[in-house]
Amino acid sequence: MESMTIAVDAMGGDHAPQAVIEGVAEALAAENRSEPFRIILVGREKEIQKELRKYPRANRNRIDIVDAREAISMKDHLLTYWRKRTDTSIHKAIELVKNSRAQAMISAGNTGAVMAVAKTVLGSLPHIDRPALSVMVPTLKGSALVLDVGANSDSKPHNLVEFALMGKIYLETIHGIHNPRIGLMNIGEEEAKGNELTKAAHAMLKNVPSLNFIGNVEGRDIHLGEADLIVTDGFTGNITLKVTEGVMDTLLPMLRREIMGNLLAKIGLFFLNKSLNRISRRMDYAETGGALLLGVNGIVIIGHGRSSPRAIRNAIHLGCRFISNHVQEKIGSEIEALQRTLTELKYG
Amino acid sequence: MESMTIAVDAMGGDHAPQAVIEGVAEALAAENRSEPFRIILVGREKEIQKELRKYPRANRNRIDIVDAREAISMKDHLLTYWRKRTDTSIHKAIELVKNSRAQAMISAGNTGAVMAVAKTVLGSLPHIDRPALSVMVPTLKGSALVLDVGANSDSKPHNLVEFALMGKIYLETIHGIHNPRIGLMNIGEEEAKGNELTKAAHAMLKNVPSLNFIGNVEGRDIHLGEADLIVTDGFTGNITLKVTEGVMDTLLPMLRREIMGNLLAKIGLFFLNKSLNRISRRMDYAETGGALLLGVNGIVIIGHGRSSPRAIRNAIHLGCRFISNHVQEKIGSEIEALQRTLTELKYG
Repeated sequence: MESMTIAVDAMGGDHAPQAVIEGVAEALAAENRSEPFRIILVGREKEIQKELRKYPRANRNRIDIVDAREAISMKDHLLTYWRKRTDTSIHKAIELVKNSRAQAMISAGNTGAVMAVAKTVLGSLPHIDRPALSVMVPTLKGSALVLDVGANSDSKPHNLVEFALMGKIYLETIHGIHNPRIGLMNIGEEEAKGNELTKAAHAMLKNVPSLNFIGNVEGRDIHLGEADLIVTDGFTGNITLKVTEGVMDTLLPMLRREIMGNLLAKIGLFFLNKSLNRISRRMDYAETGGALLLGVNGIVIIGHGRSSPRAIRNAIHLGCRFISNHVQEKIGSEIEALQRTLTELKYG
Repeated sequence: MESMTIAVDAMGGDHAPQAVIEGVAEALAAENRSEPFRIILVGREKEIQKELRKYPRANRNRIDIVDAREAISMKDHLLTYWRKRTDTSIHKAIELVKNSRAQAMISAGNTGAVMAVAKTVLGSLPHIDRPALSVMVPTLKGSALVLDVGANSDSKPHNLVEFALMGKIYLETIHGIHNPRIGLMNIGEEEAKGNELTKAAHAMLKNVPSLNFIGNVEGRDIHLGEADLIVTDGFTGNITLKVTEGVMDTLLPMLRREIMGNLLAKIGLFFLNKSLNRISRRMDYAETGGALLLGVNGIVIIGHGRSSPRAIRNAIHLGCRFISNHVQEKIGSEIEALQRTLTELKYG
């Protein structure tokens, strides 16, 4: 049996370390499979010890602690500074993956910092030019994987082909979606539409036989579930994600404001509350376990800053399935097999 | 008194010609100002005549009809073909502006076709490199103007400065917002964030003294109302708009599905219905009167395909205010005054 150890950044997220450690305790308590995993909590040891005392039934002998004195705040933007500091919880957790003491790392901390440190410390998988941040977004029909949502600011056409391949393997392996429908985010359905990047990427994507490329998808198609996998550059993907959050965050206050001026509506809200909460949970990608930094040489899962204990627990289970299903190895071998096609497409 | 004649594409939109002509009739009936306007309906004359008979009280002597045999369908993508056909309702309506028989044109038809024909027939205002499609989007604090939402696929940094200037004049003149706060759509608040385009555009925008540039805004800030005016390239802007529509269109069916499985929620919905409808109207930019193609040499207002009679009426009033407030002339003179600054910024 394979060893599975997951390094968890105890200091990452708006409700750290409480929410993180509660999630870890829940994951260990719920775990009843034949492949047990271990957790290494990384952060200020005293705070971690204190929190752990709240969970006397958590399986303490499957938890290790690695002390890290510094924590990068959620709002910190001095990434060039932090990239060089090795005593942060993010850095130390990633180092554990680098040194094979852990097979995956999870942080609900500063996304920019986790990506920067992971890229620096772990580097990319062989033959991968650019890693990509991917998230599952809810759709009318279920959910769809979108990448890149912010690992890169500028992309080249062949990067989008790499994103498609990595996303495909992830969906096939972890979500059991065979030959997922891959769409290219664009501003029109026809092949000739788009900016320079999408036009060139379209031409490449349709010439990779191993990809089930269904063509361009528009902004409104994502949430309607027209594709299982949507590739885009990190700039566009990031804006897509943030706009989605913004609309959600605008609708609820608007609803509340409307309702406060209307007695009948207040009564209605009382009855509807549960349904609204369920939808807002479904739309909240924080609940789905996190974003994956695909393409770095190690498994890195980034939780939303608002991560609840449940989200942390989901992220841990996702990490376990990533390890036991050998997703990294599959990406490695498929991207290698694609090299000749990619070179031909790039240089004619 | 200035003459105000508005050419209206009678064949444009999902509910044409009915909804368009109903909107025109309403606008003429409601009009009670000192500056009367005339309408030229452009489209299949017989159909228009038949529809007009429904509105015996519409001021028929203020309506002219220009016959156009062809109508470009909403889904048509053969823009290179249509650009050359001169007997479409879109082309003939734009020709009326070109020949000064009308001072503005309105179409709720195929947005791509209207933009393509307008750019070809009217050309740009002097000193404007690229026109931009702009829409008002609702925010928690009111509304914000976003441009470009799709007139261009690729933009240069100085285009975004032009967009900012055109949007500023529009907001000041039509909406009475003095010195509007201008944000640059980006993937982080810090100046150093973004792709090549936004980094270069940021550097230019902050050096134009006449613009109240507040820096980068992120995808979620738009709907929160952090800026009055948001500039972006047409690719990103188009995706922003479509994602917003997609989230809205996903939420309501989800809500309905949740509710169908729950009696209490059904009762709640009954009481809440009015509030929900009000919000969904507020979020629907079709209701705000349409999108403006700023920067072409003529006033072109493009209604959403779903335009209701009310939206058409709003678009007509918007056209009138554009004409009587000399927005085009103001854009022309301010962009001319900016030329030296722009040249310095472009070439160092």
